[in-house]
Amino acid sequence: MRTLRLTLEYDGTDFEGWQVQQDARTVQGALADAVAEITGERVVPTGSGRTDAGVHAEAQVASMRIESGLEPDTLRRALNAVLPRDVAVTGLEEAPDGFHALRDARGKHYRYAVWNARERSPLRDRTHLFVATPLDVSAMRRGAAHLVGTHDFASFQAAKSDARTTIRTLTALDLEGAAGREIRFEVRGEGFLRHMVRIAVGTLLEIGRGRRVPDDLPGVLEARSRAAAGATAPAHGLTLVAVDYGP
Amino acid sequence: MRTLRLTLEYDGTDFEGWQVQQDARTVQGALADAVAEITGERVVPTGSGRTDAGVHAEAQVASMRIESGLEPDTLRRALNAVLPRDVAVTGLEEAPDGFHALRDARGKHYRYAVWNARERSPLRDRTHLFVATPLDVSAMRRGAAHLVGTHDFASFQAAKSDARTTIRTLTALDLEGAAGREIRFEVRGEGFLRHMVRIAVGTLLEIGRGRRVPDDLPGVLEARSRAAAGATAPAHGLTLVAVDYGP
Repeated sequence: MRTLRLTLEYDGTDFEGWQVQQDARTVQGALADAVAEITGERVVPTGSGRTDAGVHAEAQVASMRIESGLEPDTLRRALNAVLPRDVAVTGLEEAPDGFHALRDARGKHYRYAVWNARERSPLRDRTHLFVATPLDVSAMRRGAAHLVGTHDFASFQAAKSDARTTIRTLTALDLEGAAGREIRFEVRGEGFLRHMVRIAVGTLLEIGRGRRVPDDLPGVLEARSRAAAGATAPAHGLTLVAVDYGP
Repeated sequence: MRTLRLTLEYDGTDFEGWQVQQDARTVQGALADAVAEITGERVVPTGSGRTDAGVHAEAQVASMRIESGLEPDTLRRALNAVLPRDVAVTGLEEAPDGFHALRDARGKHYRYAVWNARERSPLRDRTHLFVATPLDVSAMRRGAAHLVGTHDFASFQAAKSDARTTIRTLTALDLEGAAGREIRFEVRGEGFLRHMVRIAVGTLLEIGRGRRVPDDLPGVLEARSRAAAGATAPAHGLTLVAVDYGP
């Protein structure tokens, strides 16, 4: 039995998210099927976390334990030959015994991309949220500053969540780009509650549209209520960029 | 009767190219249908040129003459409301009487994008040609230099073409990016023969793979025969970036 670490890129548009579900096309399911086809072994790869339906990944990380003795490069190429076009294994290597993609993850980097222009962009339709209203990037940046650090993010989690604690540390929430073109929210943290990035972005977009002010955010955090925050931004603008496992 | 100039962005993946054809989904056809739906007028918009099936556009330009008195901004928004998601009118303005998107075009800028990595990239699957072999960018750049300028490009046109003259002026053919990641061919010229960009890129890729040398290219031009050049690079890596109409 050996432990492998896999890096996966996927276009989330046509997946019902990461996690295997009955009668749904998922990334975890596609990967498990490919592994079974190549090695004859039925395993459930562990992801660094679930991504929601429609969310993309530049570099999701997964771990799995298998018996197969195939060389890493051979196995990677074989998996890509049978995986569907919208998912690929971009890296596959031996990992120390006990490596666990979920438990060992120390931090994650997400990007939320907005196309802020007069008209929608067909070439960015799968990966960017289209917002026609010119956004106030500087106000969103001031709002974002209130969220960086260690806070109780109870207001920023999906209503049906059951996390043991809602305290999380956001290490960065940087806005790049400019109104009238592409705006990217680069979000880094040690861990995230369910929908936390999308609710944070949705709330900041309300600031960008002038419907809230940046100084509302301390109150939103204090409320510890989902109703205090803004709408959940749509999934298709979100990409899991990288997962950090330390040195 | 007024003349309008339209700028269009499209993801060419699911179109059979620009030009209207019987029983085929085309960009020109989609635009004509949208204009008919909004204004009740049946017109055939003129494009700056045809793009092949699968080729994308960041800014294709079209002209059309219509009776409708709708304000440009109103008409643009109305067209985008009825156009399919993979095409949008990003600009629409009054043009001088007699403006003709094809005849008046002075130059074009195309980009050909290659994902040169160990494994394919699902997030770039629609817009980049995947090449696993590490490419020699410097050799391709030396090859490209032979093509810049005014030449008889007969070797670089689709076999069934019937252009009156095969002499064209390529003003630039720049390679950007790096092996192991994204490589972009930025191609600018006054006019292009059918498949000229794709055959030029296909030939340069053969140089990049070490199957030809850069100094083969003067001989390929001199041969004036399609058989002397390399394979036509696939359509999906090509994007019409801009059309130049002068000041």
